[in-house]
Amino acid sequence: MQWPKNILVCEVGPRDGLQNEEKTLTVEQKVELIDRYVQAGAKIIEIGSFVHPKAVPQMADTDEVAKRIKRAAGVEYRALVLNIKGLQRAEAAGIQKAKLTVSASRAHSLSNLNRTPEEAVRGFEECAAYAAARGMTLSGAISTAFGCSMEGKVPLEQVISVIEAFQEIGVKELSLSDTTGMANPQQVYEYSLRVKEQFPDVIWNLHFHDTRGMGLANVMAGMMAGIVRYDSCFAGLGGCPFAPGASGNIATEDLVHMCHEMGIETGYDLDGIISIGRYVQQLIGYDTSSAILKAGKSCDIVKKQK
Amino acid sequence: MQWPKNILVCEVGPRDGLQNEEKTLTVEQKVELIDRYVQAGAKIIEIGSFVHPKAVPQMADTDEVAKRIKRAAGVEYRALVLNIKGLQRAEAAGIQKAKLTVSASRAHSLSNLNRTPEEAVRGFEECAAYAAARGMTLSGAISTAFGCSMEGKVPLEQVISVIEAFQEIGVKELSLSDTTGMANPQQVYEYSLRVKEQFPDVIWNLHFHDTRGMGLANVMAGMMAGIVRYDSCFAGLGGCPFAPGASGNIATEDLVHMCHEMGIETGYDLDGIISIGRYVQQLIGYDTSSAILKAGKSCDIVKKQK
Repeated sequence: MQWPKNILVCEVGPRDGLQNEEKTLTVEQKVELIDRYVQAGAKIIEIGSFVHPKAVPQMADTDEVAKRIKRAAGVEYRALVLNIKGLQRAEAAGIQKAKLTVSASRAHSLSNLNRTPEEAVRGFEECAAYAAARGMTLSGAISTAFGCSMEGKVPLEQVISVIEAFQEIGVKELSLSDTTGMANPQQVYEYSLRVKEQFPDVIWNLHFHDTRGMGLANVMAGMMAGIVRYDSCFAGLGGCPFAPGASGNIATEDLVHMCHEMGIETGYDLDGIISIGRYVQQLIGYDTSSAILKAGKSCDIVKKQK
Repeated sequence: MQWPKNILVCEVGPRDGLQNEEKTLTVEQKVELIDRYVQAGAKIIEIGSFVHPKAVPQMADTDEVAKRIKRAAGVEYRALVLNIKGLQRAEAAGIQKAKLTVSASRAHSLSNLNRTPEEAVRGFEECAAYAAARGMTLSGAISTAFGCSMEGKVPLEQVISVIEAFQEIGVKELSLSDTTGMANPQQVYEYSLRVKEQFPDVIWNLHFHDTRGMGLANVMAGMMAGIVRYDSCFAGLGGCPFAPGASGNIATEDLVHMCHEMGIETGYDLDGIISIGRYVQQLIGYDTSSAILKAGKSCDIVKKQK
């Protein structure tokens, strides 16, 4: 049983977490969260999305957020875009890294966009050319990569086909996302090994939800397949649309805590991100499913007793 | 990455779960839960404890429960006992398998019992002789085997020393219990490999709590070390005394769901135990931390859409 000595934990809270909240935070609050998270060790942070404000009102102020955050050296500030317009907004706001999302599920992609996943990727050709010409980098997120609410388990061959499409437009960094919380460790291990083997030059990232309690077990499986980048979300925000009340993304505190307990370095100040997680709960006004925010670190109960 | 083709999931809810609840269930309710769980596939079930009724009032009626449950062929009905008196009560109630608990932590054992863990095990010599003479079998549970609120991480050598003491009194089945929810997958793997290697004739069992979100990841680590028996608790009852509101034992629904998704057989009817889990929540009057009871099975969201 082998796992990496260190992993890169990408904080997606400001985008993937907050976009799911009923309460929209202010620009100041978002900027504070992002700046504090970077200070606590984030090396990649997804600060928001450049999409139509009517589609996701919680993200309407991403341009302003991007302009106000302190830019720390060596930190990658990333944002989600859906098209060339969004990419241009990102550029104007000084965001050099953009994330493009495509659903691996044919049924889901056809139903949402009336295009196959491969067609959806090819639709990003203009973005890819634009980014290449301006030295911006792109990251491709393959959602429903493990399972989909419309077609169930998404076959690995289907995922591979979407990866190939992304390769054709020159995207070198890809994420497999378990949007629906359906992935299990066997499947994660199988898919991860295969994509790493078949596409060794891609920078691989995994994105899990803890909807069915398997979030950290899936990270273990990914690590054992040699993948060293994982998305997670402060306080574990970002529920599941198909299961109201269920857990959301894996909580960054939970992931970093497990890694540190296992001797895996993340570069995060765990106490710092726990404190930010508690602050997030205050801002959104309720207690989330983050285990560490409920129970504290393993060593805390020892200190309490002493 | 190798895991077993099938595992044995021991249901500890009627004892470890219900003993932590403020509300005490009736004999009828307990009998119904046990009988239904066995019908849904439990092959080992911990039905209660034979301890002093003042110490654990929730378990005061275990004699009555034991007498009323239907005995299914091939099922092991187990109960916790603390001493020869408890063992005799178990025998009188027709329970042939008794569990003895000792804390691996010296500090914890000395503070609770004024005895070292090894002395505590030797204190069970009379029980061992009694059981051997009557064809009863004993199972040893080593609590705080990974961490303790008084001394932090419990060293493997200390755990080994307790195992040796159990070997000396002839106990052939042992469980390492993460009572405080402090175990991490690296530690579980290390401890499991070592105890299996050093004591190959022992029947090994692991017992995890999901206090810090690592419950199922710890099961994965144990499976990869080749351990095939796991305790879990219906609806994930049994919180952590040091962290009010934190998760309890790993939920049987969550464990069985993960295994079935991975193609690991458990012999359980998953829908059956989910239905019992929901009934448990009704009986105790609140929603527990079980992920599957909140989110449903992975395949449920597909069915809902179709």
